Amino acid sequence: MKAIALNATLKSGPDRSKSSTGHMLDLIAAAMKKEDVDCEILTLADYDIWPGVTSGEGDGDEWPMIREKILAADILILGTPIWLGQPSSVCKRALERMDAFLGETDDRGRMPTYGRVAAVAAVGNEDGAHHVSAELYQALNDVGFSLAPNAIAYWVGEAMKSTDFIDLPETPKKVQSTIDMMVANALHLARLLARDPYPGSR
Amino acid sequence: MKAIALNATLKSGPDRSKSSTGHMLDLIAAAMKKEDVDCEILTLADYDIWPGVTSGEGDGDEWPMIREKILAADILILGTPIWLGQPSSVCKRALERMDAFLGETDDRGRMPTYGRVAAVAAVGNEDGAHHVSAELYQALNDVGFSLAPNAIAYWVGEAMKSTDFIDLPETPKKVQSTIDMMVANALHLARLLARDPYPGSR
Amino acid sequence: MKAIALNATLKSGPDRSKSSTGHMLDLIAAAMKKEDVDCEILTLADYDIWPGVTSGEGDGDEWPMIREKILAADILILGTPIWLGQPSSVCKRALERMDAFLGETDDRGRMPTYGRVAAVAAVGNEDGAHHVSAELYQALNDVGFSLAPNAIAYWVGEAMKSTDFIDLPETPKKVQSTIDMMVANALHLARLLARDPYPGSR
Amino acid sequence: MKAIALNATLKSGPDRSKSSTGHMLDLIAAAMKKEDVDCEILTLADYDIWPGVTSGEGDGDEWPMIREKILAADILILGTPIWLGQPSSVCKRALERMDAFLGETDDRGRMPTYGRVAAVAAVGNEDGAHHVSAELYQALNDVGFSLAPNAIAYWVGEAMKSTDFIDLPETPKKVQSTIDMMVANALHLARLLARDPYPGSR
Repeated sequence: MKAIALNATLKSGPDRSKSSTGHMLDLIAAAMKKEDVDCEILTLADYDIWPGVTSGEGDGDEWPMIREKILAADILILGTPIWLGQPSSVCKRALERMDAFLGETDDRGRMPTYGRVAAVAAVGNEDGAHHVSAELYQALNDVGFSLAPNAIAYWVGEAMKSTDFIDLPETPKKVQSTIDMMVANALHLARLLARDPYPGSR
Repeated sequence: MKAIALNATLKSGPDRSKSSTGHMLDLIAAAMKKEDVDCEILTLADYDIWPGVTSGEGDGDEWPMIREKILAADILILGTPIWLGQPSSVCKRALERMDAFLGETDDRGRMPTYGRVAAVAAVGNEDGAHHVSAELYQALNDVGFSLAPNAIAYWVGEAMKSTDFIDLPETPKKVQSTIDMMVANALHLARLLARDPYPGSR
Repeated sequence: MKAIALNATLKSGPDRSKSSTGHMLDLIAAAMKKEDVDCEILTLADYDIWPGVTSGEGDGDEWPMIREKILAADILILGTPIWLGQPSSVCKRALERMDAFLGETDDRGRMPTYGRVAAVAAVGNEDGAHHVSAELYQALNDVGFSLAPNAIAYWVGEAMKSTDFIDLPETPKKVQSTIDMMVANALHLARLLARDPYPGSR
Repeated sequence: MKAIALNATLKSGPDRSKSSTGHMLDLIAAAMKKEDVDCEILTLADYDIWPGVTSGEGDGDEWPMIREKILAADILILGTPIWLGQPSSVCKRALERMDAFLGETDDRGRMPTYGRVAAVAAVGNEDGAHHVSAELYQALNDVGFSLAPNAIAYWVGEAMKSTDFIDLPETPKKVQSTIDMMVANALHLARLLARDPYPGSR
C-alpha cells in the first residue's frame, strides 16, 4: 500500500511550512505510518502545472510527473485550504488535469484511476469544509476514484474567527479520531480493491 | 419598507422557541426595528406547505398565504438551520414553491419578485454557512430577487463541536456588526428599487 | 445482494408514474435485475416522513420503516429530480433523517450504514446533475456510505429547454452505458464490503 | 457606465479565439454596446496572476492591473468555462485575489467594490451552470458586489454530449433573451448604485 498526498495550499517554497493544510496532511501521514503505509506529501504550488484538461500540456508542464505519482499510489489524499468557503485554485487546477482520465478508459470502460481510493483534507479559518468535500468527492468520483465512509479530515474555526489550525496548542481529540477513522477506512477499501479490481462493463 | 423573514427550522409548535435560526432572525428583526422597518417572522414548519413547483397545489396547501406575504414585502430574509452542511428540507420546500415565479412574468419579462431584495440567515453547530448562502443566493436570484453586498448573517461553531447559537452567553460582536451591515445594505437597495423598478426587457 | 431505490420526486400517488426520476430508477433496477440483484423502488412522497434528525420522530412518522429497508439493503440508490439546479426537498428530508446515523456508532466508531454502498440518480429538464451528486455524495458519505467510481446515473437536457427524460423516444446510448457501469461498480464494491466489513477504529 | 468582463478560459494566446466562454462574453458585450455601455473583455490566462489572497503578491504579479480595471468599472462580468461541473481554476484564482477586498474596508465598513454590480457567464459542454453561478454569486457577494435578478447568462448542452457553444449554428433565442435581460438588469442596478451609494454602517 502506498499513498500520495497533494497539498493545494497557495503557499510555495519555504512558506509552505506555515501551511495549515500541510499540517493536516502531516497528521494524516503520521496516522498512515502507524499502519505501515508510506504517504508522500507533495506541495502543488512548488510545481509548474499548466492550465488544461489533458495529461500533458507541453514542454515544461510538470503535471505528468504528478500524474505518475497519483497512478503509482493506492490512495490519493487531496488537501486544500478553504478560501471564501471553497477549495483553492491550486486544487481546482489539479482536478482539471485529472479530467483527462475520463478519456483514458480501457476496453472495459475503466479509467486508469479505477481501484484507487481518494480522501480529502480541508482546513480553513472558518467554514467551508463540507462544501469543499462535496465538490472534491464529486470531481474525484467522476474521474474514477472510490470513496470509503467519512473520507474527509477537516478543521475550521468558529464563524468569522481567524485562528490557524497550525497554531492550535494541540490537535483536538475529535479531529484526531476523525483522521484515524478516515485512514482506517481508506486503507481497508484500498486493500480490497487491490485484491479484487473493478471488472468494468461492456 | 416591510420585511418578511421565513424560519426554515425543522422544529414546529412551541419547540420553535428553541430554534437557533429563530434567534438569528430575532436579531435581524431587531436591527430592522432600529431602522423603523417592520419584519414579520414566520416559522415554515408551522404550516402545511405541499411539495410542488406551482403557486397553489390544492385545497389545504398553505403556501399561497406565505407567497402573498413574500410579495407584499420589500425584503425577504430566508433563514435556515444547517444540517450535513446544507440548507434544511423545509427551506428547500419553500424555494421549490418559489420556482413558480419563473413562469409568472409580465410582458417585459419581469417576475412578480422583481424589485424585491433577499438576504439569508444560516445557523448551525459547525460548518456550512457559505455553501448554504451559495445555494440560496442562486435559487433566490434565479426566481427574481436582488442581492445587496454581504447578504448573509450567520453563525457556526468550531469544527465537530455542538454548541447552539441560541445558547451563546452573548452575540459575538462580529456577528452583530455583520447583521447590522446586512440590514443596512438590504434596506438601502430595497429603497432604491422601490423608487426605480427594473424596466425589464423586450 | 439487495438494493433499495428511493425516488425523491415531488409527485405522489398515481402521478408518480409520470416521474422522470422514477423512469431512471426503473432503468437502474432493470440493469440490476440482469445481474440477478433485486432492487425495490420506493416513492418517498407516498409516505409521511416527519421533519427531524432522529431515527424516529413519533407516532405516525413513517421514516422508521424506510430506515429499516435502507439498513436491510446492500446498496442504496437515492434518486432525485432537479429543481433550480438542486436536489428536491423530499430528497433533503430523507438525508436529514439519515443524519441520525452519525450518533448510532458501535464501539469501533462504525455507523449502521458502514459497508453499504450508495449511488445517485438525478434527472431534470436542464442542468444541475453534477451539483446534485456533489451534495448527495457528501451527505451520504458523511453518514457512512461508500461510493464506487462513477456513482451517478443522470440525464438533463440542453440549457433552458423543457424536455422530460420520460418523454425521450429512447434512452440515449451514453446514458444506458453510464447506468450499466454504475450498477457494475456498485455491485462489485458491495460484494467486497459484505465479505470484508470495515474494521472501524479505536 | 463601464463594464469589465473577465474570461476565465483555460486557453491563452491565439487559442483564446476558440473559447466558448469568450463567445458568450462577446454576445454580452454586444448587448451592452446596444445600451451604449462599453465592455472591455480580458482573458485572464494571458496574464501572470500569482496565487494568493492579497491585492499584490510581488514584482511580476499582474493581478494589480486587473484589480484596477475591476474597480474602475461599474459592472463586472465573470465568465468561466465549466469543467467537471465546476468553475475553472483560472476563475477561482481571480476570486481568491478578490478575497483581499474583505480587508480593505473604509470607516463605514464598505469594501472598495461596494456599489459595483456583478454578473456571471458560464459555458460548458454539459451541466454545471447553476452550480457555477451559486459559487460565483456567493464569492462575489462576499467580496462586496451587488447582484441584479437573473445575474447569469449560460449555455450547456444535453447530458454527456460534447457540442461547443461556439460551434452552434446560431445563438438560441432563449439564450439571447437571457443575455438581454441580464444586461438590462445589471445596468439598471449599476446606475442606481452609482447615483446612491451604500451608506455602510457604524
